[in-house]
Amino acid sequence: MNLNEKINQLSQIKAELFKKDFLLTWEKSDEDLKTVLEVADILKEMRQQNISPRVFDTGLAISNFRDNSTRTRFSYASASNLLGLAVQDLDEQKSQIAHGETVRETANMISFLSDFIGIRDDMYLGEGNKYMREVGDALDEGFAQGVLPNRPGIVNLQCDMDHPTQSMADLLHLKKEFGSLENLKGKKIVMSWAYSPSYGKPLSVPQGIIGLMSRFGMDIELAYPEGYDLIPDIVDMAGKNAKASGGSFNVSHDMSEAMEGADIVYPKSWAPYHIMEERTKLLKAADKKGLDALEQSCLANNAKYKDWEYDEAKMKRTKNQDALYMHCLPADISGVSCKEGEVNADVFEKYRIKTYHEAGFKPYIIAAMMFTNKFKNPAAVLKQLVERGSKRIMA
Amino acid sequence: MNLNEKINQLSQIKAELFKKDFLLTWEKSDEDLKTVLEVADILKEMRQQNISPRVFDTGLAISNFRDNSTRTRFSYASASNLLGLAVQDLDEQKSQIAHGETVRETANMISFLSDFIGIRDDMYLGEGNKYMREVGDALDEGFAQGVLPNRPGIVNLQCDMDHPTQSMADLLHLKKEFGSLENLKGKKIVMSWAYSPSYGKPLSVPQGIIGLMSRFGMDIELAYPEGYDLIPDIVDMAGKNAKASGGSFNVSHDMSEAMEGADIVYPKSWAPYHIMEERTKLLKAADKKGLDALEQSCLANNAKYKDWEYDEAKMKRTKNQDALYMHCLPADISGVSCKEGEVNADVFEKYRIKTYHEAGFKPYIIAAMMFTNKFKNPAAVLKQLVERGSKRIMA
Amino acid sequence: MNLNEKINQLSQIKAELFKKDFLLTWEKSDEDLKTVLEVADILKEMRQQNISPRVFDTGLAISNFRDNSTRTRFSYASASNLLGLAVQDLDEQKSQIAHGETVRETANMISFLSDFIGIRDDMYLGEGNKYMREVGDALDEGFAQGVLPNRPGIVNLQCDMDHPTQSMADLLHLKKEFGSLENLKGKKIVMSWAYSPSYGKPLSVPQGIIGLMSRFGMDIELAYPEGYDLIPDIVDMAGKNAKASGGSFNVSHDMSEAMEGADIVYPKSWAPYHIMEERTKLLKAADKKGLDALEQSCLANNAKYKDWEYDEAKMKRTKNQDALYMHCLPADISGVSCKEGEVNADVFEKYRIKTYHEAGFKPYIIAAMMFTNKFKNPAAVLKQLVERGSKRIMA
Repeated sequence: MNLNEKINQLSQIKAELFKKDFLLTWEKSDEDLKTVLEVADILKEMRQQNISPRVFDTGLAISNFRDNSTRTRFSYASASNLLGLAVQDLDEQKSQIAHGETVRETANMISFLSDFIGIRDDMYLGEGNKYMREVGDALDEGFAQGVLPNRPGIVNLQCDMDHPTQSMADLLHLKKEFGSLENLKGKKIVMSWAYSPSYGKPLSVPQGIIGLMSRFGMDIELAYPEGYDLIPDIVDMAGKNAKASGGSFNVSHDMSEAMEGADIVYPKSWAPYHIMEERTKLLKAADKKGLDALEQSCLANNAKYKDWEYDEAKMKRTKNQDALYMHCLPADISGVSCKEGEVNADVFEKYRIKTYHEAGFKPYIIAAMMFTNKFKNPAAVLKQLVERGSKRIMA
Repeated sequence: MNLNEKINQLSQIKAELFKKDFLLTWEKSDEDLKTVLEVADILKEMRQQNISPRVFDTGLAISNFRDNSTRTRFSYASASNLLGLAVQDLDEQKSQIAHGETVRETANMISFLSDFIGIRDDMYLGEGNKYMREVGDALDEGFAQGVLPNRPGIVNLQCDMDHPTQSMADLLHLKKEFGSLENLKGKKIVMSWAYSPSYGKPLSVPQGIIGLMSRFGMDIELAYPEGYDLIPDIVDMAGKNAKASGGSFNVSHDMSEAMEGADIVYPKSWAPYHIMEERTKLLKAADKKGLDALEQSCLANNAKYKDWEYDEAKMKRTKNQDALYMHCLPADISGVSCKEGEVNADVFEKYRIKTYHEAGFKPYIIAAMMFTNKFKNPAAVLKQLVERGSKRIMA
Repeated sequence: MNLNEKINQLSQIKAELFKKDFLLTWEKSDEDLKTVLEVADILKEMRQQNISPRVFDTGLAISNFRDNSTRTRFSYASASNLLGLAVQDLDEQKSQIAHGETVRETANMISFLSDFIGIRDDMYLGEGNKYMREVGDALDEGFAQGVLPNRPGIVNLQCDMDHPTQSMADLLHLKKEFGSLENLKGKKIVMSWAYSPSYGKPLSVPQGIIGLMSRFGMDIELAYPEGYDLIPDIVDMAGKNAKASGGSFNVSHDMSEAMEGADIVYPKSWAPYHIMEERTKLLKAADKKGLDALEQSCLANNAKYKDWEYDEAKMKRTKNQDALYMHCLPADISGVSCKEGEVNADVFEKYRIKTYHEAGFKPYIIAAMMFTNKFKNPAAVLKQLVERGSKRIMA
């Protein structure tokens, strides 16, 4: 399908993304999600064809990372740049936020000429997504009061509940791998816990995956050792989604059995929900001793499940012994990035390039979230851009 | 008044800002100041109307923050971006300046393709503004010697003497609130010290306010506890300005009485002049013990003046019990950002949004300082920009 | 010569720079080097004439500095900005590379929408240049596998072997000072070690200078105290280059004698090759004690050669007592940036502005390396740009 056909197809979908923040996939309609996928796909195609999708002559995209990041940071920078925005980091070390400034005030102070704020805040269970909404409320007030010339959009770059730019990139990857969203119906995807020597990994990826993939008629298998639960509400929601979309949802506790007949596998470590709750309390109390103790006990407990590695034997149990392996990266690769980890080195190597392709959709997903936030009729604007035909690089 | 009318009005003012650094408001003529205000106002209006004022296709704006900042950093980034410049931070941690490089050399090394250097250096009394001039001299030499293709302009983003981007934003705010600069004649503005649990706050804001506002026929009341003096020369100058402009200037030492009949109040903490002198000596000597001792004694002394909080009782003494409250933000709000502080929470809340509007002028003030430094005839260029009519965001 | 004449001249040279990384000058043909010099010269002239050479509407230039830098950092940022690219720092502190991510993966993760990666990695002998090639291999794979829409170019911003952006800027400076590359034939250039109170300075500058200047028929004198050798292979190569280009190459151990009749002098400190090898071992072993011990012994040894300062007496022995003094900056200036150093203060002052001019070519050399990597026919594109005539700053 060429660009114009894709744009026409897009124009058929009725989305409600205009001027809305993108904080949780489960707040978005199926049409919203499809629109983001289509726009991302079109923007990627335009970039490939050297057609510049720049829609901003000037403007700032603020990046507020409250936790480390390489790929999401670069994806956000790439998306902002692709549309014509300059990235400005809000570095809380060099900012005065440490000096008792309120979220409400800061949100406005950084936004006088900003178009987007990308936020990563995944450390505190119950806090990250809440913080994004506080920022959003402050921006609403600032815009309503005439403080801000426009209401900057917020993009969730990972919080305690969801990681929508990741799960949407994953979904676009699946759409490409299987040909269409329709083809995902009846496919078995295994979101499995996997062993990692590290600890305190966020729940947002597994939660984001089951929360999103359950909406497309897939058979979701959530596998983890007893006790490594995710946030219950999100698991319940995923179950309801699966039923509603004609798929199924099952929780199990044996990695090897879970893989039986899988079309897609997503072996990834995370910290148990109750540990993350405990951790949040200790972090808030700045209880260094308590945190160290928790980490030790958690690592000791993890060590009981070193057999939760995605290896060749488990791969052999999947559909045609060749289920699509997915990971948000970086993976803990046994013998490569750690002694024992989430995935066997040979198995990872077999799918390594596919995980790069998977990651490669993220910049376009973020750009699509921005694009659909700014334009009521994205198809019309994309059409204009194609007609304008500005070259990204002179030729 | 529409854009073209504003631009025509601007074209009547004869300013001397072309190729001049903006280091102190009191080095600028009234026409210079009016020009900056008008250009800032026009740029803000253009942005609101989605007309891009981008005048640079490429170019760098260097930001050199030798002290923390959120709002000024973002204001500078916003202003630079609005005109088409990319911000490049000179981070003295990652630079080689720590390795004995001279100011003279560094100023040239970073400026080969730069258009502006924004500098915040407010820690050392007698040093910050001097440093900016050293940089300026180095740039003059570099340009004269053909090292630099053009002479980058310097914008003072806060020094030990003045905070011109703040005071000019405050002045534009007053102009908007009272309808015109003329309407400021005879208005009473109280620049008052206020209690803060912190210590060592720069003098540049109160000095900047009395140094600038005294030029528009206002009645200036400078109130502070005995001993909390500002730099004497600047206070003298403010007194002379007030007389010359048909206003008045009075120093007093009772916050409550000072507020009597005030049209505008600016309650803000600062460290006493002699303490800052002492502090500079100790900082230069890297006398950690001495600095800690000074901080303790200073905090102890501050604590005697906790009643220097702008509260409802004091507000009630102002004109119509409703003087315009101003602050450069962040304010130390009692019970919010600290136990006891500069301003009562309810009083601050009443004027909070107005302080946001006040802050919102800063990016445009900085952009106007840049614009008038680069163009001999800003009105003509603004006219061109309106005629060009490039959209900031595609529509 | 005007711009069009320069461009026509450029079009005569047959270079092979298209889609090639710039890692070592000695991997490039004479035509390649001449092409970079010509393009740099043309870009500088365009900037001077306010003609924007912007060829990218959007795009990222990644800067990966594994060692401190001010001037190269700003040169890279300036070059990127001049061509229309936004700089995105890969800060390994805030990135996840510290968390065991492989070079191969990271190289792809940051490159989905990137056009260039500029890398400084000069700490580890035998490692820096190797790292750049590992990154390059990863990018080749990513592009071949369809992960990356284009293969980002790599610019060596200083490694353990060479500092090509420095040596090429130095060469352009010499071309300007002496009128042409031809005029460099038979000129004597002294690359001399000089005393510095610091230690562990990279070998890349002296190696880069002898590796490059030996190709233009110059008489190269490499002078250093016994034991302060450079990498032997590079010294051998320089000797062969000199012979092949009709020049000469001589190693000597008396700074004063070396200066006899010199046309050009480059007095610069470096650490001995064998010390850097030792240092690399200790750094890898994270042997803090060993490193401190090595530093002490090395500094003690340096101290024996404090007379290796470029002073007036030595200058008097040069051609017309006025050899062109060169330095990559910052220089260790006796009595200015240190008690005793590489160069006498008066001598440095005499040539200070010329060292600024020397440094001023670097942004354009980097831009030229980028330009020639992206365009098969740079002359044709430059012609287009001149015809387009976009102004860099509105006028």
